[in-house]
Order: sequence, then structure tokens, then C-alpha cells
Amino acid sequence: MPDVVPRLLKGFRDYLPAKMIPRQRMVAAIERTFQSFGFPPLMTPALEHLDILTGKYGEEGDSLLYQFKTLGGRDVGLRYDLTVPLARVIGQYGDLTLPFRRYQISPVWRAEKPGRGRFREFVQCDADIVGSSDMSADAELVQLACELLETLEVKSYSVRLNNRKVLTGLMQKAGITSAVETGVLRTVDKLPKIGEEKMRGLLSSENGLDQAQVDMICEFVSIEGGDTGEKDNAEIVNQLEDMFPEGPGAEGVAELRQLFAILDGVGVTAAEIDLSIARGLTYYTGTIYETFLGDLPGYGAVMAGGRYDGLIGTFKGQEIPAVGISLGIDRLLEGLVELSLLEEHDTVARILVTVFGPDTAVYSSNVARHLRQAGLGCELFPSYARMGKQFRHADRRGQRWVIVAGADEEARGEVAVKDLESSSKDNQETVALDDLVGYLKGKMGEG
Amino acid sequence: MPDVVPRLLKGFRDYLPAKMIPRQRMVAAIERTFQSFGFPPLMTPALEHLDILTGKYGEEGDSLLYQFKTLGGRDVGLRYDLTVPLARVIGQYGDLTLPFRRYQISPVWRAEKPGRGRFREFVQCDADIVGSSDMSADAELVQLACELLETLEVKSYSVRLNNRKVLTGLMQKAGITSAVETGVLRTVDKLPKIGEEKMRGLLSSENGLDQAQVDMICEFVSIEGGDTGEKDNAEIVNQLEDMFPEGPGAEGVAELRQLFAILDGVGVTAAEIDLSIARGLTYYTGTIYETFLGDLPGYGAVMAGGRYDGLIGTFKGQEIPAVGISLGIDRLLEGLVELSLLEEHDTVARILVTVFGPDTAVYSSNVARHLRQAGLGCELFPSYARMGKQFRHADRRGQRWVIVAGADEEARGEVAVKDLESSSKDNQETVALDDLVGYLKGKMGEG
Repeated sequence: MPDVVPRLLKGFRDYLPAKMIPRQRMVAAIERTFQSFGFPPLMTPALEHLDILTGKYGEEGDSLLYQFKTLGGRDVGLRYDLTVPLARVIGQYGDLTLPFRRYQISPVWRAEKPGRGRFREFVQCDADIVGSSDMSADAELVQLACELLETLEVKSYSVRLNNRKVLTGLMQKAGITSAVETGVLRTVDKLPKIGEEKMRGLLSSENGLDQAQVDMICEFVSIEGGDTGEKDNAEIVNQLEDMFPEGPGAEGVAELRQLFAILDGVGVTAAEIDLSIARGLTYYTGTIYETFLGDLPGYGAVMAGGRYDGLIGTFKGQEIPAVGISLGIDRLLEGLVELSLLEEHDTVARILVTVFGPDTAVYSSNVARHLRQAGLGCELFPSYARMGKQFRHADRRGQRWVIVAGADEEARGEVAVKDLESSSKDNQETVALDDLVGYLKGKMGEG
Repeated sequence: MPDVVPRLLKGFRDYLPAKMIPRQRMVAAIERTFQSFGFPPLMTPALEHLDILTGKYGEEGDSLLYQFKTLGGRDVGLRYDLTVPLARVIGQYGDLTLPFRRYQISPVWRAEKPGRGRFREFVQCDADIVGSSDMSADAELVQLACELLETLEVKSYSVRLNNRKVLTGLMQKAGITSAVETGVLRTVDKLPKIGEEKMRGLLSSENGLDQAQVDMICEFVSIEGGDTGEKDNAEIVNQLEDMFPEGPGAEGVAELRQLFAILDGVGVTAAEIDLSIARGLTYYTGTIYETFLGDLPGYGAVMAGGRYDGLIGTFKGQEIPAVGISLGIDRLLEGLVELSLLEEHDTVARILVTVFGPDTAVYSSNVARHLRQAGLGCELFPSYARMGKQFRHADRRGQRWVIVAGADEEARGEVAVKDLESSSKDNQETVALDDLVGYLKGKMGEG
């Protein structure tokens, strides 16, 4: 019996190699895309002073913070997202040149009730542009979202856009006070999960809206524009313009119009207005959006984000506009696996160099080194086990080439190379060490 | 005034882009090297059940754990290193095929007194081989350490090796009980920082050793082998063999001999025996080593590790041997910057595409997209600011090429390209959009 039972906290996960290998390829592709848009990386600590985090995510968010007192008596919290730490950074370093862009890929922690697909630690991957209130910034992030999915070979996806100012306009029109606005938005945000019936119930029971207000909201979020059954972004904007002649609603409509002028101009056909997109977090002030995989209906958003022009002011004492996008790495990974766009792998090196025993350990090491120096990654079997075990190891790992380098081979400056994927009986060849790199590269080229 | 003063917890750091850009290049090179040795990535959670972590690091280590009670009443801790979580993983998943290797790059947290170069959150980067007790595994990790530094273009470095069994042999010889052994090793570990005088003091005052014991330890740790003034590994092993005819000391000496037989055979000249290497952590059982930068004497170890054959048994109920190496990313980064092997950068994209205003936003976006699709990363200026501001932005970021795409240029299907690094007055050229990629690639090739 072990002294301590090895186990994970509920809602936490290990990523074993078979899952980490494709995951890391995905992350590398995402990073290349961020960088091709000129976003450099930023890293902030996992722990922050508690007052940096509280009051930014709404009541529910605050209640989900992992927080504690350090031995030194300080109140600290684990970061809940990557947006608030970015806002803190912008407020803290006066010498950062605006506009400022960055991406960050880091875990965040939320003490949610664990459930299917809901974890207490998950890696977020955010890109933000700080210091621009122009819709060209919002449009660039939508393009970035599309480019990320294209890079990952996702064929079908949609970016559903809305604007918080338009929603505020709706609240004002419906006579809903700003005190309950956040609660109402949070309820609307749940629509895809709970359906209209339940949303109606919550809007009246939890948010205290009357029947007319509930009707107004339900009618609003289902506006589709045009009569074709197809969504028509231009038509929706026209309808909204009629609904909101002035005030925040009108401002939001103007932003949507500008945003779509760019998106249409650059040919982003995946973007569509969806007035039911509300986003749960308090800090959004303008454009909001969520991105969905077309071939996995009901899977939920894999990216989301929006404009938060007020948040940085909390740390800076001066309003600085900002807009961002956040991608849930693990949600996207699961989605891509379901779409067969990523395969699990159990090895990063398709060559295994075997070792007979102490007498030939140097020769085997030198063979491995020789391969690596030629750019051929390989695993050296790390113990003097029976050959059968070493071959089984290669087989289980999905390695294809097994190199045998015994005393006889060493004496002749040779190795034996076995191809585990060959069905021929004669799948082992003797190759001079000097020819080994060329031999393997040739064979790999064939496949 | 801001509502909340933006600030970091003591001992925690932000990595702004100028530092993150070279850091990430370094990490990418390290990951490529790990993978070329066949180590796949693993990821474990930041939070663990507290009993997974306690009792593995010694008393001092336990006292430095960040620990707290969750709202659900569970005792949890932030991970202190990456070795104990690996041991937990091996214990937990019965279907992992041994030998198992993995690398992990993740932050760890220790509530140390912050000081120069000492932080409470830092990123560790570990590679381990589980399931082999043969010295070929230890030798491979030493080779990996050397290869990592070679990849990073470090010209001069040393790997200083010792063996815990040899140290245990010494304790037995000196009549030091195993109850105080860990404390004595921890004191010896401080030698490079505090010097012999202070170490002697601590050995008697803190660890309760008598004068003869203190003398014996001091004499032992300074054994150099041979009379040449140069260290002589083979000579040290011979001396140790005479000192330890049997028991754990003799076992440790045999391991050192086998290890150096491989290291000498594959030509690892940077490896040397240093009997003062003790390592502070409790769990080491055999080979231990630290790696130093030759051109930064006094900088301290940038990598360290060793064999811990007992740790996994805690979680498995069955002993499984393991050996690993751990690299402090941030320490190594600072070292490389000091050695001028890495430069700070403020941009990931050397091309800035400017934007005049809403009317030309689509054209500018299309120019940027055109460049990215050809593999030329570029930043699109994200707001409709004055041209002077956009040029200053490029200058501050260290960008070289500024693309101007106004209404006139759009009408002619052209852009103007300005080379900020050219001293010539005539540093702006008009280029047809269709020729732009070729033009820029040509210019970049010239540099």
C-alpha cells in the first residue's frame, strides 16, 4: 500500500503525454498566428493581491475566486482570467507605449462546481489590443479568431457578434434599471444552455422583470433580419438603427455598422450578428462576441471576448479603451479531437535506440547522439533490459524504427535497423553507422 | 487616482514583452532539445491535495509551501516542484508503460523570503526518466544537460556530480546518525554561498557535530584527486574506493565509476566529480549534480537534479527508480542575458501596416492579410491615429518596415514602404501590392 493515495483534486486534470503532444502542436500553431499579427507574449503571476481581482467579474465571479491569507497575513487570490492582470499591468507600468498588444497563455482558476467539461483549472489564451477605441481593432481581433481556426484546419465556424451598448439601449427602452442590468445579461447569457422557457422564468423570478419586459427581451434576442430565414447582418443593423435613434443603443449600432463595414470589406463571411450574445462578465462595454464550431452544434463557444473600455481605468485613474479575445485551449482541443483534426500520440521521437548492457552503453549513446545531431530525434532505452522488452516498449509508444547496437555491430561500425511497421519478414537491415542518417531519412521520405 | 493601486505581491514578477520574446525563444530551443531525446511533455495541476506535497522536501521545504483550505474545506497546496507531481502521476496511472520519460515546464511556488534573484514564483523545467536504475539513465540526463547548454550557445559550463550513497557512507564513517543526516547535507549544500568558516560553525552549532566530524566533512568535500591541481575524476573514484570498501559508500562509488565510464566514452568533458555537491531536498538517493556557467563564476547552479529511487514508492507502494534534471528557466535566462547570448526585443513583427482612417481600414487590413499569408508577420496599427504617431510607434517597437496604404495608394493598387533603418533620405519606395511580398523578402534577405 502507498503511504499517500495518489489522486487529483476534484475539477483538476493531468495531461499525460498522449494528450499533451497534440495539445502542444495546437498551442504552437496558435502562438505562431498571434505573432504573425504582431502580438508579443506577456506573463503575469498566478497570485495577485486580492483587491486586484475582486469587483471585476460580478458577484458570481467574486464568489468563485480561489482566495486565501498568506502566512504573512496578506489576502491573495489565484487569477480568475487574464484580462484583469493585463489591466493591472497597463496601470502599473507608465512607460508602456500605447497602443499595446500582447497575448498570454496561462492557467486560470475558478472554484466552479465541477461537471462535464467544466474544470476548476483551465488554460486561457488571450490576445488584446489596448489603447484604441476604433472599430478597426475589434475587426482585427475577429479576423484573428478566424485565422486561428483556419490555421487549425477548422472548416466551418461562426463568430457571433453583439454590442453591450445596444443591450444597454434595450434595457433603457424596457425600463430595466442599471442595478439589475448585469443580472439580466447573465440570465440572457445562459439562453443556449437553458432554452427560452427557463430564461423567461429566471428573468421574472431572479431578475424581477415584468411580463412586458420579458417579452421585449425575448423578441429582441431573436431578431434575425430579413425574411429569407437566413441571417442578414445589414438588415439587422438597419432594424436596430430604427429601434435606437439615440443614446447608448444608437452608439452601439453605429459601432456594429463600422465593424461590419471592415469585416465585409476583408471578406470575413463567418461573422454574424447574434443579439442573444450577452457575455457574463461585468467589464464589457461595447463589442462582444463568441465563436462556435459549425460541425459541433451545441458544443458551446471555443473563443469569446469583447471590448472593455472601463476596466483599465480602475488601475490607471484614466480611461484606456481595450478589446480582446480569449480562447479556451482545452475546450478547443477537445473539439478538434472530436472533429478528428488532432490525433493523440504517445511519442515525440519515432526512433528507439536499444542498449544491451554496460559494455555497449557508450556505443548506443554515441549512435543516439549521432542521430540527434543530424536532426533525427530518438529515444535511448534507459536501462539494460532484455531486447524483447525494449522492442515491446517501441511498439507500445508507436515508435517505428528500432536500432540495435550490440557488441558485434559496434566491432563492425554498424547497427541493425528494424522497421516495426513493415509486414515483411525481412524487416531488419544492417547499416553502416556512417550511412545510418541517410538510410533513415530516405526511409522516412518514402513514407 | 486609480480605485486600486496596481501592484505585485512581493517576490512575484511580470514578464513584459521585451523580456518574454527572448525567453520564449529560449524555451522553444529547450523543448526541441527535450523532444530530440524522446521526452514528451506532461502537465499537472498547480493545486494538489496537501498530503501529496508534505513530507517530501524536508522540514524547511514543508514550511515554504503555499497552503490553504478551500471553501469546500479541503487542505490544498500550490506545487513546490515538478518532481513530486510526477511521482504522484506514476503512482496514480497504472497503465503507464515503464520506463517512462517526460518533461514539464511549469511555475512552482515557494514562500521564501524574497531577495536578489530569489522569487516566490518561478518556472521550472524538468526532464525525468522513471523505471531505470541503470547508470545509462543518469548518463543520458547529464548529456541532456550539456546538449541544452550547447543548443543555447553557452561555450563554457561544468556539470558537477556527486552521489548521495557516498555521502551516506561518509556519515556512517564519521558516526553521524541518519537522524541528523538531512540537516548536515543541507548545511553542506550552503557551502558555496556561505564559505567554509560559516559552514563549520553551522555544522557544530545547528547540526551538533563534534570537531572531528566537522574536520572529516571539510576534508572530504575538498578532495580533488591527483597532485596536478586539476581535478581528476578517475583519481577521485580510486580514492573513494579505498575509503569505502563496503556498504552504501561502496555502492555509490561503483555508480560513480559506471557513470563516468559512459560520460568519458561519449566525450562529456564538462562532467566532474565535486564532493561538496549535496542538494538540499530529502528525496535524493544516488547520483546528484549541479550545472554551472563557466563564464559567470559565483552565479550559482542553473540546472540541478539527481536520482530519487524512493519517492515514487510513497505513492505506489512499490519502489520505482527515477532520475531527473531540473532547470530554472528564469535563472538561466538572466545568465544568458548577462553573457549577451540573448537580447531583449520589443516586437515579434518587424513590419507595421499603418491605417489612415475608416475609409482605408479595409485596404490596410487586406495589405496586412496579404503579408501574413505569405509568411510575413506584421502588425496593423489598431487605431486611426495621426501618421506621425504611427511612425513613432514603429520606431519605439524596433520595427523596421512601415507600410503606408492611403486612399491614393489604394486607387493605384500600391503601397509606400519606408525603411526606418535606412539613413538615406530616399528611404521610401512605392511598390505595387502584387510585388510587395517579393520586395520585402528581397530587402530582408539583403540584411
